[in-house]
Parts: sequence; C-alpha cells; structure tokens
Amino acid sequence: MTSHPSPAVLARAAWSRLIEPGDRVAGALVAALGPVDALAWLRGLAGAPGAGRLPVGGPDGADTSAQRLDAAVRRWSLRLPGLDEARDVRVFGRLGGLLLVPEDPRWPPRLADLGAAAPPCLWVRGEPDLRGVFGRSIAVIGARACTAYGEHVTAELAAGMADRGWTVVSGGAYGIDAVAHRAALAGGGPTVAFLAGGADRPYPAGNARLLAAVLDQGGAVVSEVPPGSVPSRTRFLQRNRLIAAASVATVVVEAAWRSGALSTAAHAAALLRPVGAVPGPVTSASSAGCHRLLREGAAVCVTDAAEAIELAGLVGDDLAEPVAASGAGRVGDGLSQDGRRALDALPLRRGEPADSVARAAGLTLEEARAALGALELEGLAVQGGGVWKRTSRVDGAPGQRSTGPRDKEGQLGQRFHQ
Amino acid sequence: MTSHPSPAVLARAAWSRLIEPGDRVAGALVAALGPVDALAWLRGLAGAPGAGRLPVGGPDGADTSAQRLDAAVRRWSLRLPGLDEARDVRVFGRLGGLLLVPEDPRWPPRLADLGAAAPPCLWVRGEPDLRGVFGRSIAVIGARACTAYGEHVTAELAAGMADRGWTVVSGGAYGIDAVAHRAALAGGGPTVAFLAGGADRPYPAGNARLLAAVLDQGGAVVSEVPPGSVPSRTRFLQRNRLIAAASVATVVVEAAWRSGALSTAAHAAALLRPVGAVPGPVTSASSAGCHRLLREGAAVCVTDAAEAIELAGLVGDDLAEPVAASGAGRVGDGLSQDGRRALDALPLRRGEPADSVARAAGLTLEEARAALGALELEGLAVQGGGVWKRTSRVDGAPGQRSTGPRDKEGQLGQRFHQ
Repeated sequence: MTSHPSPAVLARAAWSRLIEPGDRVAGALVAALGPVDALAWLRGLAGAPGAGRLPVGGPDGADTSAQRLDAAVRRWSLRLPGLDEARDVRVFGRLGGLLLVPEDPRWPPRLADLGAAAPPCLWVRGEPDLRGVFGRSIAVIGARACTAYGEHVTAELAAGMADRGWTVVSGGAYGIDAVAHRAALAGGGPTVAFLAGGADRPYPAGNARLLAAVLDQGGAVVSEVPPGSVPSRTRFLQRNRLIAAASVATVVVEAAWRSGALSTAAHAAALLRPVGAVPGPVTSASSAGCHRLLREGAAVCVTDAAEAIELAGLVGDDLAEPVAASGAGRVGDGLSQDGRRALDALPLRRGEPADSVARAAGLTLEEARAALGALELEGLAVQGGGVWKRTSRVDGAPGQRSTGPRDKEGQLGQRFHQ
Repeated sequence: MTSHPSPAVLARAAWSRLIEPGDRVAGALVAALGPVDALAWLRGLAGAPGAGRLPVGGPDGADTSAQRLDAAVRRWSLRLPGLDEARDVRVFGRLGGLLLVPEDPRWPPRLADLGAAAPPCLWVRGEPDLRGVFGRSIAVIGARACTAYGEHVTAELAAGMADRGWTVVSGGAYGIDAVAHRAALAGGGPTVAFLAGGADRPYPAGNARLLAAVLDQGGAVVSEVPPGSVPSRTRFLQRNRLIAAASVATVVVEAAWRSGALSTAAHAAALLRPVGAVPGPVTSASSAGCHRLLREGAAVCVTDAAEAIELAGLVGDDLAEPVAASGAGRVGDGLSQDGRRALDALPLRRGEPADSVARAAGLTLEEARAALGALELEGLAVQGGGVWKRTSRVDGAPGQRSTGPRDKEGQLGQRFHQ
C-alpha cells in the first residue's frame, strides 16, 4: 500500500489533513460522495468564493445544511494550499506506518458506531490488524496526576487483562495511561495507544521509549490526524471518542472531579459501551471522578481484572468468578433457620434438655429435637445423659463474645450501670 | 405508663417475651385479634395439646396456616410458664425505660412497613419520642473489624449528619457502629442504638459508657426483646431489620464481602429504603462488601454527609450541593468551541495573522475573526500589527506542555526515533 496507494486511500489521507477530528459535515459528505469525488468537488470549488452547488442536504432544512456546508468548505479550503497527501502517505510508510481505511478488512469495526463523526482514516504504526487487536479490548484510562494507589490498581488491572488475552487500550499519557500500557506489556499482551497528535510524534516525549516498546510487542500507536500534527485540547477530547468507540468497554481507574477521562467515559456511555469505574478512598481527590460516575449510575463498580472482563464480556461468557469468601465458611453456615437457632441456644459447657433448648430458641419441642439431631450429624452438638451441649468446634455469632444462650429474666440493669 | 400500664401494653410486653423477633405468625395473630385477646386465646389453649380452634387462616391453604399456627402455639406455650409481663414493665420502668407500643403517637411510623414482622413493642431507654427522633434519621452501619480509613469516614459522615440535624442510627457494636454513635454525639446530635439483646444490657460491655452517653444526650437505646434477653445470631440479624426499617436511609461505610451490615442493607432495599455505600480502596477487604453493593446496583455511591442526606432527603429537598471544582475554573472554560479552538491555535510568542489562526484551528476566516474578538474581550488574546497572540494568562491544554500550535507537516518521525 505504501508503494501504490489507491486514489480512495489517498483521498482519505487528504481529508484527514483538511478537517479537524470529529467533523461531521466532512463525514457526511465523504459518505455521500465517496472520498475521491468529495475531494474533487472541494478542489473544484477552490477559488470560487460562493460555493454555489451543494451536493448534500434535502429539501427540508436545506438552508441550514447549506450554511453549514458553506462554512465547512471555507474551513477546509484554507488547508488546500500545500496539501500533498501522496507525500504524507509515502513518508509515513517509510517509518513502517500504514494508512488504514474503513474499506480495509483490518479496520476496527466498532468505529462505525461513530457515524458521521468516524475518522476518514487511521494512521497506524505497529500491528496493522486493528480488527483483530480490538476484538477483545478494554480501555484503561485515568488521570495524569495519579496516586500510588491508582498506579497499583492500574497495574493489577492491565496485567490481569493481558494475562487473559485482552488488549489494553489507552492514551499514551503520563500517569494511569502509561502504567496501563507498561503493565500490559509486562503481562505479555498487546496494547494500543491512541494519540491526539501525529502517530509519528510520541507525546508526551517522556513516553517515547514506552511507545516504542508498544510497537515492539505486537501493539499499535494510532492517530486520526496526519503525521506531524500537534496535539491540542480539542484533539485530545476527540481522541477520547476513538478510545471509547474502538474498545469493547472502558474502565476509569482514577479521575478527579473534572478530568479528561470522564469525557472518554461519557463518549463510551453515549455509544452504549459498558463503562466501569474503580472506586478509591473518598478522601482522595483523584478518585472523585470515579465516584461521580458511580453515583450518577454512569459506570459499574469494577475492582479487579476479572470484573472488568465481565463488564466487557458477553452475557454468559467471560463472567467474573465470585470472589471467594475470606477463609472458610463460618460454622453453621449451611444450617436451616431452626438449626441456627438451636445452635445459638445450646450452651457450651453444661448440658440442657431438649425442651429447655426449645424454649430458649423459640422452637417447638419437635423442631428442637429435629434441629439437635441435625446438629449432631454435623458434629456441632453432642448429647449424653438426656442433655445436649455444643462441641468445641462451634463459634459464636460473628464478632461477638459468647455470653451463654439464656435470657436472664429479672437480672435487669446490672451491667448497664457499671 | 410505668405505674398503670394498660392491658394492651402488658399483653404486648408478654408477646415480646413469648416470641423470637420477626415472628410473622404472632404478628398476624396480634393484628387479627388484638394483643389482649390473642394472649387470652393462647393462655386458654395452654395445656390443651391439640390447639383445636384456629382464629386465623382462610379457606384457601387452611391446612398450611393451621399447621403453622399449631407449631407456633407450641413454641409460644413453652415460654408461658413463669411469664410475668407486669414485672418486666415495672422493673424496666424503674430503670427509666419505657415500653413503647404501636398505638402510641411516639411509635416510629416507618416500622409499619414491616407488616406482620413488625415488633409487638419496643423497649426504649432515653428519649421516648421515637417518631420525632426518626423523622430525619440515617442508619450508619458497618463492620466491627474496620480500618482507620473506615473510622475516619464514619466520623466525618456522622458528625456531618448530626450537624445538619439528622439522627444517626446504628447498632451499638464495636467498630463502625461505635464511631458513628460517638461522632454523632460529638456533633451535638441525638443518636439511637438498636440492640439485639435487652435494652437494659449494654452489648458489647465495652460500649457501656458510650451507650450511657447516648441516653444522656437526647438519644435512645432500643430493643424489641425484653429486658435481660441475651443477643444471639438470629437476634442480631432481626435487629438489623429494625435499623433498616426505622431509618429513612441506610449507609454502609465498611463491610467485608460477607458482613452483617449487608443484611441490614438487604432489609433496607427490600423495604424500598434508599441504600448508600461508601467506596474505599479496592485493595481493602473491609470495603469489598460496599463495592459488592455498588456493583450489584443495590446501593448508591456516597462519599460525604451531604450525599448521604441527599439520599435520604425528598427530591428537591436536602439535595447535596455539587462539589466545587478544585481551584478556579481553567482558563477558557466558558469559551465556545470555536473560541477554544482559536485559543489552542494561537501562539504564545510570535504573532500570527487571523487567516493563519483560522487554518490551524480548522475554522473559516470569519469564524476565526469572531473567536479572536471574543478572546480579546476575555483578555486571552491581543492583536497588534495585523497579528494575534496569546496573553500570558493563558495556560495550555490540561497537563500538556505547549509545543506551539502549528502542525509540522513534513517533519516526520524525528522525535519518535530519539
């Protein structure tokens, strides 16, 4: 492709330089006419100030569409002088890069959900098969100004995803993004960085070595703006929509109350992608954005890689295993309510007859006898000499010290007044 | 009332000793016959093993109802010998306690939502007007084995609630419960402890002084089991339903994956009470239960007292104020999209003519001129000698170092290979 790019590929390269990311007018025009004819139409208008003929827009609201298109043409036309799309593609190809277009089977299919806001093409370095790379992919994003807690959780999440064969997607920034890429690499998985500037320009420069490692390990560095482009605030925000759209799900690890990561989450939610948020201490401003997402019901609480994958997985597939309860189950967990009551009422040391156990437990004599028999089978109670008592295996109610099972009627107030 | 309790009050005191908490059969019987006649009926059956006449249960499912009632009668009857409800009420009154019944206007009205599982009466020490105390009340509950983080957050929450005139409700246990009561007292507010054992028996004994302070400061110590009763696991679980039902909302601060606090949350949810959960580090097992509630959508994320009160408050009332963004707004926050783009494209040092700004920003010349004019009015841009530049007030995009606004076409790959 670098040697003989097709006219359609070249035209899409041109469009990526003429527009700013997310230009819906360009998207609609290219969709209606095709990239080549749309570009030829624009070039034909160049120099004609009025831009008389309007190829899109129906009879309803035609004025508005016409005005929007007219303004767009004037914006685009300012960038026509000096445009050399063949050179862009050629030089990017010399760096080992590839211009990927929607007609290519390797195009990430989820981007189609962006509709007219989808990019005309992607400038890709590294693995060209983005369809394959994004098949099982989760965006892990968060604040540049992250805490040690956020770094730790991100590393656990990303390594766990890589370990289970999921691609970690992020923005290549300092903080959470960098930790996510690095942990994915350490976990042996591919990872993809979407940049707000050109894919040839590592940004920030301090992450240049990390982004090179992303390429070395089967991942990709991707941008919708052409080589040489600088990042800007609006390009960062538009870049976020690509992260959200290309990935199956998006997880925010740490984000302040106002954070760019929340814009990615908002894009994901608008595209009906699952969104997860990792909670943190409420005393940490770096988790306030995550808690905001949880509070507003915009995100699901995610605490580990398995839960993130469950979020992304299809129903019935990739479901997180329930977390094992810490330690073994408590004694008496499997008992019926009657059994639990009888166990509570059974003294540890001295024995009690069954009718006394029944009375203390609030059971009938028959219920108490059945429950005591079940407790005996479980090894939780023993009888002898007509009385029942607990075995030494039995613990008390959770966290409470056993004070013996008998209600002490008539011994009022003694311990309250000590 | 302590001097001459009515027959209905005495009968309810008797029922509280005959049953175990949450006995729906007793609740239905007392509701159908009234406490006095229900008790007289039970006493009339005493000694008659068959319990022939069945006052409740319709023609459908009469067998099952009859069997359930028959078993219940045999349970209750085991506790009839030695029953002395007048003495219970008298001795509890000598301690300054009050037996509160549903007919009393001071009864907490929300308990009615428990239906047949509502307690026949409450043994109350301290403030008798529970209707008033629970009018604005939030349960703050959590693990006995809490962390320093949990203690800190609980103290902030409870003090903030007390400060805003809300009653803090909890279970009087060690850990989160004790911190909640203590912080509410420190905040000058009333607080209520529901005990699983008798209200005359401070449990755990180590919190005796705290529970005495609860009484001293206009709060109450409340139980549905009669004086002298010991706590048991089943009574703890039933006690949790009273906390959930009496309070307007329930907030779980710290809870392990399996924690009694989750049972309180489940009761609250079943009663359609708002439930909140405070997030914490995902690395903390003490927050796993809270995250579970959030993940399952059983609780709303709560991070401070204002959010807890918003949870409990009526819509349009007691709404939490939005958290102020840390520091002042960013430069350019109020700008239009065109203005933001023009600002991004505007160089700091050297000036650029308007058409060059338009081209870099992806705007038409007219849009760029309008945007630059707006920026000038905001003090963000200056013009002179036919060129525009930024003023020194302007910051870059969040967290990025400004590299100047011009896309460097044709300068590919230089920084990627460093």
